[in-house]
Amino acid sequence: MCDNRLVKTIHSHHCHLGWDNANTPVAHVAPGTTMSFECNDSSGGHFTPTSDISAVENMPFDRINPVTGPIFIDGAEPGDILSVKINEFTPSGFGWTANIPGFGLLADQFKAPALALWHYDTQRMTPAAFGEHARVPLKPFAGTIGVAPAAAGNHSIVPPRRVGGNMDIRDIGVGTTLYLPVEVAGALFSIGDTHAAQGDGEVCGTALESAMDVTLTLDIIKQTPLAMPRFSTPGPVTRHLDGAGYEVFTGIGPDLMEGARQALSGAIEWLVKTRNIPAEQAYMLCSVCGDLRINEIVDMPNWVVSFYMPQIVFE
Amino acid sequence: MCDNRLVKTIHSHHCHLGWDNANTPVAHVAPGTTMSFECNDSSGGHFTPTSDISAVENMPFDRINPVTGPIFIDGAEPGDILSVKINEFTPSGFGWTANIPGFGLLADQFKAPALALWHYDTQRMTPAAFGEHARVPLKPFAGTIGVAPAAAGNHSIVPPRRVGGNMDIRDIGVGTTLYLPVEVAGALFSIGDTHAAQGDGEVCGTALESAMDVTLTLDIIKQTPLAMPRFSTPGPVTRHLDGAGYEVFTGIGPDLMEGARQALSGAIEWLVKTRNIPAEQAYMLCSVCGDLRINEIVDMPNWVVSFYMPQIVFE
Repeated sequence: MCDNRLVKTIHSHHCHLGWDNANTPVAHVAPGTTMSFECNDSSGGHFTPTSDISAVENMPFDRINPVTGPIFIDGAEPGDILSVKINEFTPSGFGWTANIPGFGLLADQFKAPALALWHYDTQRMTPAAFGEHARVPLKPFAGTIGVAPAAAGNHSIVPPRRVGGNMDIRDIGVGTTLYLPVEVAGALFSIGDTHAAQGDGEVCGTALESAMDVTLTLDIIKQTPLAMPRFSTPGPVTRHLDGAGYEVFTGIGPDLMEGARQALSGAIEWLVKTRNIPAEQAYMLCSVCGDLRINEIVDMPNWVVSFYMPQIVFE
Repeated sequence: MCDNRLVKTIHSHHCHLGWDNANTPVAHVAPGTTMSFECNDSSGGHFTPTSDISAVENMPFDRINPVTGPIFIDGAEPGDILSVKINEFTPSGFGWTANIPGFGLLADQFKAPALALWHYDTQRMTPAAFGEHARVPLKPFAGTIGVAPAAAGNHSIVPPRRVGGNMDIRDIGVGTTLYLPVEVAGALFSIGDTHAAQGDGEVCGTALESAMDVTLTLDIIKQTPLAMPRFSTPGPVTRHLDGAGYEVFTGIGPDLMEGARQALSGAIEWLVKTRNIPAEQAYMLCSVCGDLRINEIVDMPNWVVSFYMPQIVFE
């Protein structure tokens, strides 16, 4: 039987560094259980309020993106769906954004490390200052949320896959229900890599990375095959960004990836020229608040990808 | 000197079928001119309220997508920007959506022609009935809007390019200012292919295609190189769709195009299963109201593309 009591908190030291269906569950719970997870930030606490640029150079890549879990959901079997209803975030108030060399949509152009530290108001959740340059509206979510794959072995935490993982979907926020395909007995659910803000695309490779606690409800839908994750979100997805309109930059051509790069480059150039923001800061700002959209994907052979920069961050 | 009086209307028979900088201008206007264009629908009037499926089979592909123009803007030169402020649409109230074999994101799966006809309220612009299946909120825009390219010859109207054209960007609606790079003297501006509604992606290959008049203001920004079109839009871009939330379907993998196809397939499958909409109707419905977004483009080697289906169309 389902009950929605908060039965337990999974602490952040109960974490793992890759997806492996041989990981030992840290808890067994019944379908319908509501529980809380302490989530590490994606650096596993490497960045602190006193970090400087050297902390980017010294990042421990073998320990990034720890996820809290795994949780064995009683009765979950391959072919089921695990539903994950996101109830609440308790953010920490500290965060970071970095340009990590070799990582990001314009890695070929932004080769030097860069770091921004954030302090935000956890009570009022008002837009957070990005230096002197902008104030970014917040919308917390977990960047990495998934279940164990059927394939044996330890799979890198970096790429997302059909069982979820590091999907970095900004819209899986409070009130959203995520549906994941179960591939192993018990599903083996884990979560981490919490973000206080991110644009669609996460273009520089990092978001407003920030440790926080998440409360959610796990349930099972029996024997309903699902090819890819899906989610239901009850309201507007960009209302926190919408209020002052957008400056939009297109990339037009036969390759969606190249179109995305052109669109982002247009945005960065505009931020540098019209707002005097240094290019690497503009790149990071784009990552935490701007959205990539595919406007047209049928007028062969050229597609249109656009980067939507919300003007509200300058108000 | 600029004046914003409405100086003239360009009638829809002043149109052309490709982009060619040798086309004779139908008018010369001063920068700052506000004017009105009668725009053909993308079939050039082929579809009427009495059309049936045979009209898709008989489409005159050598005459599709006529654009009204071109307009020579006095003083415009290569290296300038042409700014196009969209002031008003006067819609016709009739429209069509088709699945045209060989065209569309899932052309390999939807090989048979399909046609939907629309009648919408031009005064109240209330959501338009898509058969018995849904009611689609309207947001008019011109699918094709651009200037002549520098390269000689007649260039197909189908693909968009850096001088604009068939960009099919849903958000270039009333109040938006579009900026286009000028490549030839006078810019040679044309517009057409008006849509009463479309989702980001235009996934089946057509929108709610509908003839309408457009009033806009043309101006020049001198000697400001622009690599790709950009636009400023003053408010929310999806508020007409936002009210009841979204059902969202992901596509996860190393290719953005394949991700978009997976995401759309998930949406169609869900519409068929949960709402009993025939697959080819679901495909067309997705095209007029659902949005493709790139949630994550950095977690190598897998990216996340999602299709956002607005629930408001079922309310």
